[in-house]
Amino acid sequence: FERPHNDTINFSNRGMTLEAELNESNKYYLNKEIAVIHKKPTPIQIVSVDYPKRSAARIKEAYFRKASTTDYNGVYKGRYIDFDAKETKNKTSFPLKNFHKHQVEHMRECLKQQGICFAIIKFVNDQSVFLLKATDLIDYWDQQQIGGRKSIPRKTIEKIGVAVPYQINPLLPYLRAVDSIIE
Amino acid sequence: FERPHNDTINFSNRGMTLEAELNESNKYYLNKEIAVIHKKPTPIQIVSVDYPKRSAARIKEAYFRKASTTDYNGVYKGRYIDFDAKETKNKTSFPLKNFHKHQVEHMRECLKQQGICFAIIKFVNDQSVFLLKATDLIDYWDQQQIGGRKSIPRKTIEKIGVAVPYQINPLLPYLRAVDSIIE
Ligand SMILES: [Mg+2]
Ligand SMILES: [Mg+2]
Repeated sequence: FERPHNDTINFSNRGMTLEAELNESNKYYLNKEIAVIHKKPTPIQIVSVDYPKRSAARIKEAYFRKASTTDYNGVYKGRYIDFDAKETKNKTSFPLKNFHKHQVEHMRECLKQQGICFAIIKFVNDQSVFLLKATDLIDYWDQQQIGGRKSIPRKTIEKIGVAVPYQINPLLPYLRAVDSIIE
Repeated sequence: FERPHNDTINFSNRGMTLEAELNESNKYYLNKEIAVIHKKPTPIQIVSVDYPKRSAARIKEAYFRKASTTDYNGVYKGRYIDFDAKETKNKTSFPLKNFHKHQVEHMRECLKQQGICFAIIKFVNDQSVFLLKATDLIDYWDQQQIGGRKSIPRKTIEKIGVAVPYQINPLLPYLRAVDSIIE
């Protein structure tokens, strides 16, 4: 019996979005009582609802709204966890336009309350995932406002971020990366 | 000039729901950089969406889903805050049926991670608001499962809960009640 020739096994599933991968990982963390972290529902502006007599209320007209916070939050080791997940097809850098102003302001506010805030960034091209601290993201964001670059070089993310390699359970062990940024 | 004859002034607004009162209070806490606490969007099951050429995507059919967590969460003094808000028209007790099983299980899970969990309960009849610790709520909930009462007497809530009197800013100073339950 011989070991397969591929030295590094990548457990990532090319059909899965980063969001689905994180939701699955969060389910694992919840079941193992390691953390309670959920994705927030998508905010919807409801315009019109039907209330049929013998069945469930039916929303007939509604629109997607821009989120005013990040997508994920919860609790881990008593600490408040807050992050957003972003995928990019870009190979050499992460474009800052992936974030809305409101999300960055939300992170700034959570940091003031000593929350643990970060972004999970996936380069879909080669299925690499990194945790980037909100403080680093905010540095680049603020620089951009005064004429700085519109993206963060991948090389920088590799250096200042924390790699989150795929594994089996959980698929994306990002709380290990969180451990490394909690002082 | 004489002081008005009413000794206790109630700043509550009978037209406002508890949720609106909490949202307003949270806005105050956010602006004053005291805490970052938001209501989660209502979870919706989207069935059909129209993508018109020159305007926003329009949801044509969707249904309300039951929340699997509580409605509010966020961060205060570095601690994870998690709660649900419930109104009752009942004068003498708070019916436990106001909670879904999933919400109580969610609170149980957050407590294991050392989150600060509670319910904000409003007796609309006389506009009285109380903070009830999740541990107390869960005690009553579990007792109910084995044949105990289906509601918590108001007298008990007055005794083991923390009153949240209306004031001007914030309208519902519930974080003061939270201070009293953080050991
Ligand atoms: Mg997102
Ligand atoms: Mg509620």
